[in-house]
Amino acid sequence: MIVVMNPSATPQQVEQVAKLIREMGLKDHIIKGTDLTVVAVIGDDRKKDRGALEQVPGVDRVVPILAPYKMAARESKPNRTVVKLGNSATVGGNQVAIIAGPCSVESRAQILDAAAKCKAAGANALRGGAFKPRTNPYSFQGLGEDGLKMLAEARDATGLAIVTEVVTPGEVELVAKYADCLQIGTRNSQNFKLLEAAGKQPKPVLFKRGMSMTLDEFLQASEYILAAGNGNVILCERGIRTFEDHTRNTLSLSVLPELHLRTHLPVVIDPSQGTGHARLVPDMCKASVAAGADGLIIEVHPDPSHAMTDGAQSITPDTLATLVASLKRIAAAVDRSV
Amino acid sequence: MIVVMNPSATPQQVEQVAKLIREMGLKDHIIKGTDLTVVAVIGDDRKKDRGALEQVPGVDRVVPILAPYKMAARESKPNRTVVKLGNSATVGGNQVAIIAGPCSVESRAQILDAAAKCKAAGANALRGGAFKPRTNPYSFQGLGEDGLKMLAEARDATGLAIVTEVVTPGEVELVAKYADCLQIGTRNSQNFKLLEAAGKQPKPVLFKRGMSMTLDEFLQASEYILAAGNGNVILCERGIRTFEDHTRNTLSLSVLPELHLRTHLPVVIDPSQGTGHARLVPDMCKASVAAGADGLIIEVHPDPSHAMTDGAQSITPDTLATLVASLKRIAAAVDRSV
Amino acid sequence: MIVVMNPSATPQQVEQVAKLIREMGLKDHIIKGTDLTVVAVIGDDRKKDRGALEQVPGVDRVVPILAPYKMAARESKPNRTVVKLGNSATVGGNQVAIIAGPCSVESRAQILDAAAKCKAAGANALRGGAFKPRTNPYSFQGLGEDGLKMLAEARDATGLAIVTEVVTPGEVELVAKYADCLQIGTRNSQNFKLLEAAGKQPKPVLFKRGMSMTLDEFLQASEYILAAGNGNVILCERGIRTFEDHTRNTLSLSVLPELHLRTHLPVVIDPSQGTGHARLVPDMCKASVAAGADGLIIEVHPDPSHAMTDGAQSITPDTLATLVASLKRIAAAVDRSV
Amino acid sequence: MIVVMNPSATPQQVEQVAKLIREMGLKDHIIKGTDLTVVAVIGDDRKKDRGALEQVPGVDRVVPILAPYKMAARESKPNRTVVKLGNSATVGGNQVAIIAGPCSVESRAQILDAAAKCKAAGANALRGGAFKPRTNPYSFQGLGEDGLKMLAEARDATGLAIVTEVVTPGEVELVAKYADCLQIGTRNSQNFKLLEAAGKQPKPVLFKRGMSMTLDEFLQASEYILAAGNGNVILCERGIRTFEDHTRNTLSLSVLPELHLRTHLPVVIDPSQGTGHARLVPDMCKASVAAGADGLIIEVHPDPSHAMTDGAQSITPDTLATLVASLKRIAAAVDRSV
Repeated sequence: MIVVMNPSATPQQVEQVAKLIREMGLKDHIIKGTDLTVVAVIGDDRKKDRGALEQVPGVDRVVPILAPYKMAARESKPNRTVVKLGNSATVGGNQVAIIAGPCSVESRAQILDAAAKCKAAGANALRGGAFKPRTNPYSFQGLGEDGLKMLAEARDATGLAIVTEVVTPGEVELVAKYADCLQIGTRNSQNFKLLEAAGKQPKPVLFKRGMSMTLDEFLQASEYILAAGNGNVILCERGIRTFEDHTRNTLSLSVLPELHLRTHLPVVIDPSQGTGHARLVPDMCKASVAAGADGLIIEVHPDPSHAMTDGAQSITPDTLATLVASLKRIAAAVDRSV
Repeated sequence: MIVVMNPSATPQQVEQVAKLIREMGLKDHIIKGTDLTVVAVIGDDRKKDRGALEQVPGVDRVVPILAPYKMAARESKPNRTVVKLGNSATVGGNQVAIIAGPCSVESRAQILDAAAKCKAAGANALRGGAFKPRTNPYSFQGLGEDGLKMLAEARDATGLAIVTEVVTPGEVELVAKYADCLQIGTRNSQNFKLLEAAGKQPKPVLFKRGMSMTLDEFLQASEYILAAGNGNVILCERGIRTFEDHTRNTLSLSVLPELHLRTHLPVVIDPSQGTGHARLVPDMCKASVAAGADGLIIEVHPDPSHAMTDGAQSITPDTLATLVASLKRIAAAVDRSV
Repeated sequence: MIVVMNPSATPQQVEQVAKLIREMGLKDHIIKGTDLTVVAVIGDDRKKDRGALEQVPGVDRVVPILAPYKMAARESKPNRTVVKLGNSATVGGNQVAIIAGPCSVESRAQILDAAAKCKAAGANALRGGAFKPRTNPYSFQGLGEDGLKMLAEARDATGLAIVTEVVTPGEVELVAKYADCLQIGTRNSQNFKLLEAAGKQPKPVLFKRGMSMTLDEFLQASEYILAAGNGNVILCERGIRTFEDHTRNTLSLSVLPELHLRTHLPVVIDPSQGTGHARLVPDMCKASVAAGADGLIIEVHPDPSHAMTDGAQSITPDTLATLVASLKRIAAAVDRSV
Repeated sequence: MIVVMNPSATPQQVEQVAKLIREMGLKDHIIKGTDLTVVAVIGDDRKKDRGALEQVPGVDRVVPILAPYKMAARESKPNRTVVKLGNSATVGGNQVAIIAGPCSVESRAQILDAAAKCKAAGANALRGGAFKPRTNPYSFQGLGEDGLKMLAEARDATGLAIVTEVVTPGEVELVAKYADCLQIGTRNSQNFKLLEAAGKQPKPVLFKRGMSMTLDEFLQASEYILAAGNGNVILCERGIRTFEDHTRNTLSLSVLPELHLRTHLPVVIDPSQGTGHARLVPDMCKASVAAGADGLIIEVHPDPSHAMTDGAQSITPDTLATLVASLKRIAAAVDRSV
């Protein structure tokens, strides 16, 4: 970190900062500029409360320099991480994974129908929620373990790997019993106990960015899973909260090249949550593949106008089939495949 | 809700919308305007997936009309809720509560010292974290149950009620055993299983707004606690995430009059999290009391430049004492007391 | 608009709203729901101050229904607008325009060099600022009319059409004398006098979205140009201001499908301003073309590490050449050309 | 500035950065840390394009250290600036100024009525717009010079100083002829030609923060006025654009203590634009005075439900009178007066 002093700071104040730095077991290095003095700190200050130095009289502010994550960092691993989803898909290799399916498992018939149609349209994994974190307590909350069983049946019928959400540490074991990949959603992106629990079991984790998380915070949170022992983490951008009102969230695609620079973990895009409107989903899928996405997770419902949840942002299997044909061409244009 | 049709929608498309509304068990009411047609929906549509109607050809958008919460709503209860914190404070009455203390319980000596000094400075409840949800997995994570015991000892020594955070459903019972009030933090504001668990035990809950939550979402989330059976909910504004960079968060004080209009629940302000800098805390406390806050929750540390967490935003007991003197005068100017 | 009454509003209050609506020359239509009453307004209320109705006792809020723009709307024109940039490019047809060049004209040698290299790399129009709106008053402010003359010379040398910024109504005539297309930047997106002045001259206008503008506001602002008589408007997304800190702005690509639905005007993307970092520009260009952009405006500098302005976000001519090769393949995959 | 290198940067890359720094006429100072190397820059780098250094291979990022403004900075002037508004008010001294009046001048009768009632309610300056920057081109755009004459007549009748908006450099002289203080609005906050023009005439300037401006940008923009020769600048917070939807803008009151630390210029708050709803205005006025505002600018209309503009956020003269009584008590509690 760099401690920036006020222009009017006294030498005694600078020395007080240096003393506190040494107390932390770090080394100080004082630089006198033309307008003000800064104190550079030498050593690993990641575990220190840097803010405490702001309280010393004469300090203007503290600027962190070291990235706050380690295991997620690109430098920590020679090769990019490639995650296998059951027997039907990989995420992080040359092929772009298409994870498709309804927001919620609504019934046995619905999920079997959806799975068959998604597979026919070109998907290579199935999404569907059995435990739903709903903003409104009076909304449909999912079918629970019954829903998980229906998903497993859909996998048996189609061969598609199952990606489904877990919302609390106490249910990690149950969900992991049925799922090929655990999803942790945006509302739980800083539910650190859940991240730790997901890190302690062997199934891959699709981890969605919080809707107001910076990339530093996102990678720090993913580090909770990695540090608990599970290296099979897929990062997922699903839109951030901004002032924009033509979408439910603002899908920030610049995270694709930035995350690919910073981390070895694969990155998938959720254009359904990321826009909130089915009419915007296909073009955002195309943009994602062109910009280097390792996968897409798309809400697809056989009958969106009767969907119990997220009807507005679900596309139909027919739209998916047309879209996949288009994505194959774009993937080829960037030397990948779908 | 109101379904707004495109200017070019056909009568058949309007009829299709009306049909779906009737299928939902609601009544439709078609209004032809000069430029376009809207379909008003009569009946309680809170549990329906309104978005599904967006998928009908010819529909431009769907506008919700009913507030998505019920028990939290002002109309649902004749009197404002007044919450008792142990034997030392009430929140929601004429007196403005001052909940003060360190971010984290760091040691027995530290919390006893902090408690005594906060009480002497005018606080009437003690805050302090034993379970810390930390952005960085390598940061200090709190003392756990040992910390809770130290808090209980501080209560015995000072009489101050204890407010402390709980981060996962499995620890609700443990924390409730020691605390006078459970705090649920911004990162868990949509951890619905935790909200439900907090709703099923009898201690009051201080519930912080998520850093990117709208007020509708905040009240819906509080409804999870209320609907589970616990009416002693204190809402807390702790700053929202915006583009501003002179503070850690943007403290949105307009929520005070707005929440007082919408809900019967009391509202407290956290100016420490809400700004991130000790130098801004006193003026934001003054502003909060002038605007009608029912309480303040303030980070106070006997030695901020050696704090293990949140040093930058902690004020000293001396600053608190000066501040409380000033708050007493402001409270009197708005016919309240501190 | 729809006026939503409070659940406790009296019939007299509803009648008072209806009376005010009739005073505005509009028709009221009262709908009693199960929980509350709404008053729908029939007629064109675009010029009315809808907010005034919020002041009537018993009113909860006012919801606008009609889009606030007319000439920019898709329905107002049977065909999409295609804008010609000098003799070298069109925007809005099948071909995706590549507008490239340095942030600022720095010298005659620099702009001639940049123009030749951009052309060789595949650009079909030249950008470059002579009047620079700089955040910092002490920064380089551009070469003014001398810069315009250098741009004209670059056009003569390469045949590339010139796109350059105008910042104040008094200079519109001067800039239009040299430029093939006037650029209005994000900081002037609600400088309505400038928009009107640009609307009263015949050269096309490349109009950048304000960094905190909604799409409704963007289209309303573009309507100032259209209503003043100039139909050759190109809309440009250049990133919005959000909490994200890995980029200078958040590039919101979902505006591409949404604007193509709402308006007949062509849409170009500025990935340089939209990210602020050269390393992110190529992938965002690819994403833009895949999602349907009608053009790109890219900062290219022969020697970015010596650029006087925007060095961080300028790519080199070599990078542009490689990028254009890639964009040709992606454009072909979505049945367009570069 | 501090140039942060990548962990894998080579000594040659570090030397290349140092060389470019020396080429800029500045001094380099290399610090090797345990994880990475940083290069500190010694000297005034405010006029340099710091971003250019980001392009050097091996550079991770560039961190600015010096505040980008000078004349606005607290250190540049021994005493706080106190601005006189005509003969009726001062801003920046012990007394908190109350600038009140309608959004727009609508007619001679309206403004004379409003002025008399605002004065009676306790205001000491009159606001009212004659040139209105309207988001919608079809909305009422103000009465122009006729409006200015009516304002002057209202001043003659009441003695209240006139604060009114100017929107384009060509009208600065005209507005300055009638007004006691020129207002520059949020939409023109980076209209630098207008800021310069306002800086070249002698009347005070009330300068509103842009709705997505950081404080650094705000002070840099105010520096355009100061550097042009006009030291009588009043800064005004009027709310920022965020995701919040219960208000038109989010009123960020933490700017009060922060600006008072950073600058000698006085700061006033606009709670009308800052919330967009009359029901929230009184409490936000109280909060502002408690937090140290040097003045308030409040929209007051004798008949808000018939206002031509901003009806939703205008309070009545009766509400103002009650509010001023309350503000007097709060001001006394913080040792100031109203």
